[in-house]
Amino acid sequence: MALIVQKYGGTSVGSLDRIRNVANRIKTLRDEGNQVVAVVSAMGGVTDKLIAMTNELTSSPSEREMDVLLSTGEQQSIALVTMALQEMGVDAVSVTGRQAGIKTTGSHTRGKIDSIDPTMMQGYLDEGKVIICAGFQGLRTDGMIHTLGRGGSDLTAIAVASALKADVCQILTDVDGVYTSDPRVVKDARKLPEISYDEMLEMASSGTKVMQSRSVEFAKKYGVVFEVRSSLNNNPGTIVTEEHDQMEAVVIRGVSIERSQARITITGIPDEPGMSATILCCLADAEVNIDMIISNIAHDGLARHSFTMQSNDLGRAQAALKPVIANLSPDAELFTEAGIAKLSCVGIGMRSHVGVAAKMFKALGEAGINIGMITTSEIKVAVTVEEHQIEDAARAVHEVFGLDKAPE
Amino acid sequence: MALIVQKYGGTSVGSLDRIRNVANRIKTLRDEGNQVVAVVSAMGGVTDKLIAMTNELTSSPSEREMDVLLSTGEQQSIALVTMALQEMGVDAVSVTGRQAGIKTTGSHTRGKIDSIDPTMMQGYLDEGKVIICAGFQGLRTDGMIHTLGRGGSDLTAIAVASALKADVCQILTDVDGVYTSDPRVVKDARKLPEISYDEMLEMASSGTKVMQSRSVEFAKKYGVVFEVRSSLNNNPGTIVTEEHDQMEAVVIRGVSIERSQARITITGIPDEPGMSATILCCLADAEVNIDMIISNIAHDGLARHSFTMQSNDLGRAQAALKPVIANLSPDAELFTEAGIAKLSCVGIGMRSHVGVAAKMFKALGEAGINIGMITTSEIKVAVTVEEHQIEDAARAVHEVFGLDKAPE
Repeated sequence: MALIVQKYGGTSVGSLDRIRNVANRIKTLRDEGNQVVAVVSAMGGVTDKLIAMTNELTSSPSEREMDVLLSTGEQQSIALVTMALQEMGVDAVSVTGRQAGIKTTGSHTRGKIDSIDPTMMQGYLDEGKVIICAGFQGLRTDGMIHTLGRGGSDLTAIAVASALKADVCQILTDVDGVYTSDPRVVKDARKLPEISYDEMLEMASSGTKVMQSRSVEFAKKYGVVFEVRSSLNNNPGTIVTEEHDQMEAVVIRGVSIERSQARITITGIPDEPGMSATILCCLADAEVNIDMIISNIAHDGLARHSFTMQSNDLGRAQAALKPVIANLSPDAELFTEAGIAKLSCVGIGMRSHVGVAAKMFKALGEAGINIGMITTSEIKVAVTVEEHQIEDAARAVHEVFGLDKAPE
Repeated sequence: MALIVQKYGGTSVGSLDRIRNVANRIKTLRDEGNQVVAVVSAMGGVTDKLIAMTNELTSSPSEREMDVLLSTGEQQSIALVTMALQEMGVDAVSVTGRQAGIKTTGSHTRGKIDSIDPTMMQGYLDEGKVIICAGFQGLRTDGMIHTLGRGGSDLTAIAVASALKADVCQILTDVDGVYTSDPRVVKDARKLPEISYDEMLEMASSGTKVMQSRSVEFAKKYGVVFEVRSSLNNNPGTIVTEEHDQMEAVVIRGVSIERSQARITITGIPDEPGMSATILCCLADAEVNIDMIISNIAHDGLARHSFTMQSNDLGRAQAALKPVIANLSPDAELFTEAGIAKLSCVGIGMRSHVGVAAKMFKALGEAGINIGMITTSEIKVAVTVEEHQIEDAARAVHEVFGLDKAPE
């Protein structure tokens, strides 16, 4: 008998039929002798409907009241899933974030899980009950209803698995697992049987949209091994776990791509302390999320900064930077480039293997693809290319590292 | 500056426009310098929609899960009303039943308020905030989400008014107040400026559907004076309060009517202890709500029982009684009569005035109306008549007691 924690997203519980499907899956696990805690999201569409109502009432909804409002979505779905299970004869019970003992901190709509007191859940498990737990929510120490922001239900599942010392934690989603690359782009992309936390984090932040980074970070911090798998079939998914020795044998785990990127370059910046801070703070104030940053001193002794962002942030970034640039120096100039994309090679094997970047660049060059910016981390090499070449680039890199073939 | 507790029902917050209306009414009170706590119900229709979903999932929904599910309706409306107020520049904050400190006991879906810890609400009032409080819900001592059943939001408002020692408690509804009789039947029915708790209780249990009895009982127990008034206009309503000397000067406060009643009479019952209990327990088990009960010994030494109920319970009652009757005695027989109605005269003045029943029966006789059963309490005389005569009966009794004219 294993204790299994599962997470079902909003699509998986998006209708009464799907709720019955989820209940069936849970019942099967139960019938096999397992203890089950299922974390569920709000029914797909419910949250959007509630947000639409607030938008009709106010242009600046209070975040405290948004938490009160939006947390009802999960509260409804846990009751409905529980009732569907009970109708199938399964002894099930729902728990809200508060009842699950999830204590949070931080500001409204962006809660962080501080701790979990699993007393109530443990009691229900001891009574032999299946638990349906509300994702995305907790109780702040001051008694406020608190939601956890994007990806909050994944976070709930991983935290609950940690608190209950679960044997298995499954994030059930609409993809089969984590692939070596996007299968819609790279035909022979392969589902990874396992991936390390760090690789998953790098992939998450470079375009592989399976999970939010912070859930992976939480799992890493508390050593929660989890599996990303499909809620539509019973295929094994991808295990996300602490790295181990065999993992380093593989140089590159996967190739992520991220489209719709844009670049701003500012030239002629006086080489003085505080210049970068001035520019980046101005972008932060304008809520522009910066991705790659490159900075260098040109031959004329003036600095130049380049950074990338989502294309749809480009206009806002330009508007915010204009007055700042004018103040920096009469020589400062701003250039923009849209229509670029980012390609990232990720793998902890890079730490012990040399020549990864060289091999990657050579493959891109042979495919006739020009490289824009380059950044690296300990386990990642990322480059920008023109957006229309990103698919060719991904296929070339995927092939040169032999990612279509399972390592021995 | 007064502390005003108001209750708005589901119809009053049934759309975003109505929510804005409610917010406007609250803002007006606030602008006049009052402190305001508004207890709100779920948006009209929301609860029904949730119930419809559960009916699709299961024929026997768990009451615990129904509480989890249905309490979301009020949680949504408090957030929306609060945001509407904030948009108007009013410093408002929502509280759920738990946050309002409403502690409950009893079984799921039928919670009783045990106590209120108003610390959080008092803190918000001290900060100058308007409070929007979820009706119909509380937290059971074991941490369970708990709803209060029918009329639960009225109960919340009265309990909150009591806990906060409010100066004014207003139950805002779709009627203007409590009338001497149903204005749709008795054209010159008059809105009562005030009524005693006991009269209100008798009227509530005899067909005047303004409020559930238990909210009035709670108000009486804790001495909470409240006003029933319209949420659609600003007319003064009816004050419900402890009786005082002037009240007894009025013999009859009002005339209630209740249609669609049915009667069962059982004859030939052996005059032995336990016979009534056998019959009434059988009906209770069948969840038939009995209203009037009359029992007597006939000339043959055998007892006969008559009792009334809602017409639509008649079939269930008959089916439940059949085997019981057969066991009672070979002489026992069951007769039914549908198509009757109940007329009740209510007034604490009856205690000090004689001849009320005689005057009432005379008026009915002169109007050619035959009386079926009669029951009395200290402040009520109730009779059954044929349903098609109930309106004439109400008008005759209303007139004979001069209820159209305000007492001096």
